[in-house]
Amino acid sequence: MTATVTPLHRKAAPSLEPMVRLVEADMKQVNAVILDRMQSDVPLIPELAGHLIAGGGKRMRPMLTLACARLLDYDGTRHHKLAASVEFIHTATLLHDDVVDGSGLRRGKRTANMIWGNPASVLVGDFLFSRSFELMVEDGSLRVLRILSNASAVIAEGEVNQLTAQRRIETTEERYLDIIGAKTAALFAAACRIAAVVAERDESVELALDAYGRNLGIAFQLIDDAIDYLSDGATMGKDTGDDFRDGKVTLPVILAHARGSDEDRQFWRDAMEGRRASDDDLAHATRLLRETGALDDTFARARIYGQRAVDALGGLGSGHARAALVEAVEFAVARAY
Amino acid sequence: MTATVTPLHRKAAPSLEPMVRLVEADMKQVNAVILDRMQSDVPLIPELAGHLIAGGGKRMRPMLTLACARLLDYDGTRHHKLAASVEFIHTATLLHDDVVDGSGLRRGKRTANMIWGNPASVLVGDFLFSRSFELMVEDGSLRVLRILSNASAVIAEGEVNQLTAQRRIETTEERYLDIIGAKTAALFAAACRIAAVVAERDESVELALDAYGRNLGIAFQLIDDAIDYLSDGATMGKDTGDDFRDGKVTLPVILAHARGSDEDRQFWRDAMEGRRASDDDLAHATRLLRETGALDDTFARARIYGQRAVDALGGLGSGHARAALVEAVEFAVARAY
Repeated sequence: MTATVTPLHRKAAPSLEPMVRLVEADMKQVNAVILDRMQSDVPLIPELAGHLIAGGGKRMRPMLTLACARLLDYDGTRHHKLAASVEFIHTATLLHDDVVDGSGLRRGKRTANMIWGNPASVLVGDFLFSRSFELMVEDGSLRVLRILSNASAVIAEGEVNQLTAQRRIETTEERYLDIIGAKTAALFAAACRIAAVVAERDESVELALDAYGRNLGIAFQLIDDAIDYLSDGATMGKDTGDDFRDGKVTLPVILAHARGSDEDRQFWRDAMEGRRASDDDLAHATRLLRETGALDDTFARARIYGQRAVDALGGLGSGHARAALVEAVEFAVARAY
Repeated sequence: MTATVTPLHRKAAPSLEPMVRLVEADMKQVNAVILDRMQSDVPLIPELAGHLIAGGGKRMRPMLTLACARLLDYDGTRHHKLAASVEFIHTATLLHDDVVDGSGLRRGKRTANMIWGNPASVLVGDFLFSRSFELMVEDGSLRVLRILSNASAVIAEGEVNQLTAQRRIETTEERYLDIIGAKTAALFAAACRIAAVVAERDESVELALDAYGRNLGIAFQLIDDAIDYLSDGATMGKDTGDDFRDGKVTLPVILAHARGSDEDRQFWRDAMEGRRASDDDLAHATRLLRETGALDDTFARARIYGQRAVDALGGLGSGHARAALVEAVEFAVARAY
């Protein structure tokens, strides 16, 4: 007999819909800022940026800024520019990531670097990054500038850290957590935290929203890294097995390697070092990840970070906004099922 | 009889030495900030950044910030962080430029992308760029942040503009001036202008220093682009003919193309489009550039921008600081002789 428990009154699968609806009107304004500020007299800039920006991303990070502002009953408009700024930082990072990884597909579409080449992707990324700071400067909060410039430096550090960990099977779980804490969770945390600044709440609220975003970001990345080994690549719009072939030592791999036989451990070393990259190798890897419980335990860890995100909200807010933020966490950790 | 006039009392060739001496003590502080702030727990970051930063650059841009502050009798220390910030923006741009151009040599040394690969250069550039904003935020002037975030966006726009003009012999002198005004002169202008902000001088002083820096930057780039066709590559530490082989349509080429015979114009088209890239082709190109006066007139235009830079100083300052800023212009336009 299995121990599956079906919660009472559980509606369908958790979804981002409540958050999308909560911020719908604000997001229209954010999108208008994004469209306006990605313009340039140099036509390649809006063309290339537009490809990625219109490419069906969930706008998760700016949505978090808006939803957190709503949680704090902020009713101004400053957060529109700042949410756009957050999305520009994210977009710049994606453009550079795809160059770094040599990726060909993102969200099921050809990447900008495949269409326009690496040089254009690097430079348009730089442009969007600069634009994001121009938007922050227009808003004029040095506190927001501090939070987002720090997040940007941490993201870049995390990306370099990931690059130097690549193909190194010795990577520890601690280092992995450092990497995803920097490359992913730092921007989630900052996106949430700046809502407290615009709502002029004290530092304890900033820290609560920072912790909500940071834990959500870690959960989000853990699930992403597990999904990369699930057969239904459509879940992500990226190719299943990208991390495997790129030799990215993610938590599922770290756990399976730690728990494997000598032979398994040799397999993981060979795979991460690029000597085992066939479809059969990927199938074997997935089998090992399941047998050792590495995937299940990655999901379990994601749920823990999800709980920490929800707990971080403490007594903040109520009603629709709070429910939407909680369900966003449930959605993030349930995406794989 | 030639019309060469030897000025009376002309000392040796104009040099950067007076400016170097003027800011020597300040530059020590700036270098300390640079060394401190390029550190990271991720070892590849200081390693890669240090390669370029220690690589013998003249620190022209931070030196301008310091010299302009001295011109205005500023005696505080805020400009140390800000000059470091300017240098970080410049360094980030160089790292990305070398990736974009696939360059193998800079200042006579192997480029970072050759040693550590393109991905590392892209990401460490992003890190330095973020760090530069962190430094500005620590200083806390929104006016400085506005000037430098705007300059950064303009630089990236100029780089994309240059990329899309590459290998297009139809590029006009106007477009070329737009490109160098953005990719080079914008940061020279901003580096000088922020000195007026820290010295708390009014906007007219800001604009005067902006114009000084901008015109100096244009002169500087014009000379760089001409030097690329002079045989003594040691002048620059980069390979002679890089622009030629990369199909960069610089002013010397635009002028020689405009003034050439039909045959010459076909040669330039072929060369810029990559069908004429041998050493013989480069020698032929250089001959055409000399015969048409394209090189001489590029130098002549550089001198005009140099004069505009000096004139922009108007009645500002006096003594050593002013003399050093004027001689820096003379140095910039005389480098080719």
